[in-house]
Amino acid sequence: MTAIAVAGARETAVGNPLFEYVLRLADDRLVLGHRVSEWCGHGPILEEDIALANIALDLIGQGTALLALAGTVEGQGRDADALAYFRDENGFRNAQLVELPRGDFGFSIVRQFLFDTYSVLLLDALKSCAHAGLAGLAAKALKEDTYHLRHTSSWVVKLGDGTPESHTRAQGALNELWRFTGELFERDATDAAVASQGIVVDAAALESRWRDMVGDVVRRATLTLPAGGAMATGGRRGRHTEFLGHMLAEMQIVARSHPGASW
Amino acid sequence: MTAIAVAGARETAVGNPLFEYVLRLADDRLVLGHRVSEWCGHGPILEEDIALANIALDLIGQGTALLALAGTVEGQGRDADALAYFRDENGFRNAQLVELPRGDFGFSIVRQFLFDTYSVLLLDALKSCAHAGLAGLAAKALKEDTYHLRHTSSWVVKLGDGTPESHTRAQGALNELWRFTGELFERDATDAAVASQGIVVDAAALESRWRDMVGDVVRRATLTLPAGGAMATGGRRGRHTEFLGHMLAEMQIVARSHPGASW
Repeated sequence: MTAIAVAGARETAVGNPLFEYVLRLADDRLVLGHRVSEWCGHGPILEEDIALANIALDLIGQGTALLALAGTVEGQGRDADALAYFRDENGFRNAQLVELPRGDFGFSIVRQFLFDTYSVLLLDALKSCAHAGLAGLAAKALKEDTYHLRHTSSWVVKLGDGTPESHTRAQGALNELWRFTGELFERDATDAAVASQGIVVDAAALESRWRDMVGDVVRRATLTLPAGGAMATGGRRGRHTEFLGHMLAEMQIVARSHPGASW
Repeated sequence: MTAIAVAGARETAVGNPLFEYVLRLADDRLVLGHRVSEWCGHGPILEEDIALANIALDLIGQGTALLALAGTVEGQGRDADALAYFRDENGFRNAQLVELPRGDFGFSIVRQFLFDTYSVLLLDALKSCAHAGLAGLAAKALKEDTYHLRHTSSWVVKLGDGTPESHTRAQGALNELWRFTGELFERDATDAAVASQGIVVDAAALESRWRDMVGDVVRRATLTLPAGGAMATGGRRGRHTEFLGHMLAEMQIVARSHPGASW
């Protein structure tokens, strides 16, 4: 089952780079949205509970719209639900950063901040790409993620420049998450192929701008940017941490228990 | 601990009926919002996942705003967070209907439909009550709940008039939930006291209108209204099913583990 899924995914990657590319965008947002939604009812204060639920909703909404686009691009009749609920772990193309368990509040906020900064820069490039459907979704998502970034940046500063405990936790989260950020700026044959279709993202410029923006907030938060070190990789090719499988099992159980049901 | 909480609540009920009344409105929405939020990431289809999360968000938002108002009315310096996270089970004033576990999708939808119908009618009365603050919150919540009711009514019809299995499940949910609906229309000294302050709700008219509206949808759904039977009671006086305590333990753990923390 798993072997077949991987083989199928590889074929698709070669055969249809645009499908693969949109899937990566979609899965980042769908998986992170689910991780954030795990805070529903467990935030430290009511207002933050609501803010996190709003972020989760935006991300799941973006992921759903992108999956629908991916399904159209694929042209094999799979819709957003089919792609969300009936792919195995190895078929998911999200970066490993977004699949890590939610951790404590500081961990979730720092992860969200690192992703938001990346997402805002990426979507800003994609909103004027040559694929009209993708450009439209990027423009809409950019508005939402700009708001998320404002929220998470201010939390990172609040936590880092807060109590000794919140500072220690935020720095710990940053250290732990750092090795999962390299994957966001990887480039492979899929990127090259969609670039030739007019979906051009300068990964090196993106990473450099991301480092500046992240560094700026981290400084204001009196935190320290971790030094380089080895970076995790594999998510874009369907290789994931142990945590994604558990999350998908939870997420897919209802749909898989009633395949084709009207509810 | 429990005994003290109950005694304290009784004193408050006598001493400050407006506080008690607003607390009932707030707790219905906060508790139901948390139950609905348990669907985050577990809905049967992505679109419904998002719809349920939106309903949860609205309800938690309404509950938070009402708790803030309750805190002001009480005048003892408790804010919405203090009331949400630092009251024990016996201090909660929600109807038992909203604390029941989420059950399957049909159960959650039927419960939400029964509550939405009640809420829309109640808020419509409260939006022109003599307390400006409460009237304002009621008017805002009425808009949201009207939308929820449209959503849940159409689902009840879809489920009832759907497959044999969805019909059976929806009817089962209706039968099981019915004995928890009586509490919504109870009247006690608190209602009489706030009526003398210009917060007047005709409970008998509310119930009769509710029965008409619920009956209409139930008929369209080819379901059957359960016959009367004994009704559960106690929530408005802090007596709850076993399920509320478990839910509160989950909901309150983060805030109680870090009392007074800045996050």
